[in-house]
Amino acid sequence: MTRYKAIISYDGTNFSGFQIQTKQNVRSIQGELEKVLKKLNSGNPVGVQGSGRTDARVHAIAQVIHFDLPQKRDEEKLRFALDTQGPDDIAVLEVEEVSDDFHVRYNKHEKTYEYLLDTSKARDPFKRNYAGHFRYDLNLSRMQEAAKYLIGEHDFTGFTASGTSVENKVRTITQADIEQIDENTIKFTFSGNGFLYKQIRNMVGTLLKIGNNRMPVEQVEKIIASKDRNLAGPTAAPEGLYLKEVRYVDEEVNGY
Amino acid sequence: MTRYKAIISYDGTNFSGFQIQTKQNVRSIQGELEKVLKKLNSGNPVGVQGSGRTDARVHAIAQVIHFDLPQKRDEEKLRFALDTQGPDDIAVLEVEEVSDDFHVRYNKHEKTYEYLLDTSKARDPFKRNYAGHFRYDLNLSRMQEAAKYLIGEHDFTGFTASGTSVENKVRTITQADIEQIDENTIKFTFSGNGFLYKQIRNMVGTLLKIGNNRMPVEQVEKIIASKDRNLAGPTAAPEGLYLKEVRYVDEEVNGY
Repeated sequence: MTRYKAIISYDGTNFSGFQIQTKQNVRSIQGELEKVLKKLNSGNPVGVQGSGRTDARVHAIAQVIHFDLPQKRDEEKLRFALDTQGPDDIAVLEVEEVSDDFHVRYNKHEKTYEYLLDTSKARDPFKRNYAGHFRYDLNLSRMQEAAKYLIGEHDFTGFTASGTSVENKVRTITQADIEQIDENTIKFTFSGNGFLYKQIRNMVGTLLKIGNNRMPVEQVEKIIASKDRNLAGPTAAPEGLYLKEVRYVDEEVNGY
Repeated sequence: MTRYKAIISYDGTNFSGFQIQTKQNVRSIQGELEKVLKKLNSGNPVGVQGSGRTDARVHAIAQVIHFDLPQKRDEEKLRFALDTQGPDDIAVLEVEEVSDDFHVRYNKHEKTYEYLLDTSKARDPFKRNYAGHFRYDLNLSRMQEAAKYLIGEHDFTGFTASGTSVENKVRTITQADIEQIDENTIKFTFSGNGFLYKQIRNMVGTLLKIGNNRMPVEQVEKIIASKDRNLAGPTAAPEGLYLKEVRYVDEEVNGY
C-alpha cells in the first residue's frame, strides 16, 4: 500500500460540497475523485480523505487530500491521469507520495480561507459565482477594527451553525485581515488551526453588518463571550468563500 | 419615442449568443433583454439592437445596445430596473438617452476584443469558462511578430468562416497586441473598425500554431494575400473571447 497526498483546486459552483452524498445525481468533489481513482485502480474502490469539507458552491484554490493505492505509481503520471480523466471543474495540481501515517485531517495543520466580496452597484456577472455581493455602504476600518476581536484562542460557538455535533468549539485564529483589492472587491483573509461549520461565513456576515453601521464594532466580542448565535449577523453567501491553503507543520507550504 | 443607449456586460457561458433565436429553450442576450423591456413597457414589445453579435460562450465587458421606449424615463431608474429584473449573467452598467438617429451598428465606431489564454499544465478550473486553454510550448515573440502582419487595411477573407454572406471583407486592424499578463495567462488584444464572423478566433488559432512552431511567422501574410481559409489555423475556443469596448467616433469612450 502506498499513500499519496494531492493538492487539488475546484470551482465549487456545480457541486453539492466536498463530501460524498448518498443521494443520487448529486455531485461532490470526493465522489468525483473516487470515481476516477476507481478507474485507475482496476475497478477497485479507493477512499479519498479531505483536509476539511467545503459546502455547496464553496471553492478551493488548494485543498489537500490523501488516498491509498495498492501499487507505487509515478507521481506526475498519476497527477496527469487524475487531472485529465476527472471533470473540468476539479484540477489536480500536485501528487506526492507520503508516509503511511500521514493523515490530511489528523496531522497538525493550519488553514487559510479567503472571502471575496463584490461591492459593485450592478453585480458583476463574471463574479456572480465567485464572490458574495453587497451593494450598500461599507466602512472598511470599522470592519478591520471588529476583526481584531476574532484573533486569538476563543470558543466560537456564537459563530457556528446551531446543532453542530462537534463538542469542542475552541479554535485559534491567527489572521483576520480585510482589504480593498480593487475598486469593487473586498477580500477577507482568515487563518487558524481549524474552523467550525459555517464559522467563516457567519463571521463575514457579522462583519458586513458592522461595516454597514447596523451593529457596533464590539458586537464580535459579545458574540464570543455570550456564545449566542442570535447576536451574530446572517451567514454570508457560499460563492465568495475559498479554501486558499492548508499548511502542515514541519512541512513545506502547500498553498499557491 | 425616446432612444436609449445602454452599456451591458455579460458572462456568455450560458447563452447561445447575442442574437435572439427562433428555437425555444435557447437563451440569447437579446432575447433576455427584450423580455425585461417588454415587462417595463406595459407588455408591449421593445426591439434591442446590439453593436455586434457575439457567439455562444463569448463574453462582453462592455457591449453597447440601443432600444426605443414610448416615454422618457429617468436614466438611473431604467438602468436599475433592467439590471435587477434581468438575469444574473447580464449586468446593465449604464443607460443614457441618445438622439433618435443614433444607431449602435451604423454610427461609426471602433471595437476592441480581448482573448484570454490559460497556459497552465492542469487547466485552471476557475478559467475553464473564461479563457481558452493551450498546454503546449508557445513562443511569445514569434506570435508578436506574426501579429504585426494583421495591422492595417486588409481583405480578411482567409480568416473568416467560409460561407459568410457579408460581401465586403476588407477591414482595418489598428491594434494586435499579445502579452503575458501573469505566469499562466496570455492576453491578445485586437482593435479595429469591425471584425468578420469568427475572424478573431481564427486569428488566435493561427497565432497559436505559429507560437507552437507549427507554422512560419509569414503564414499570416500568406493567408491575407491568398484569402485561403485552409492556410489558417483552427478556430480558437469561444470561452476566451471578450468584447471589451465599443468606441463611437466624436463621443466619449464607452468601455471600462
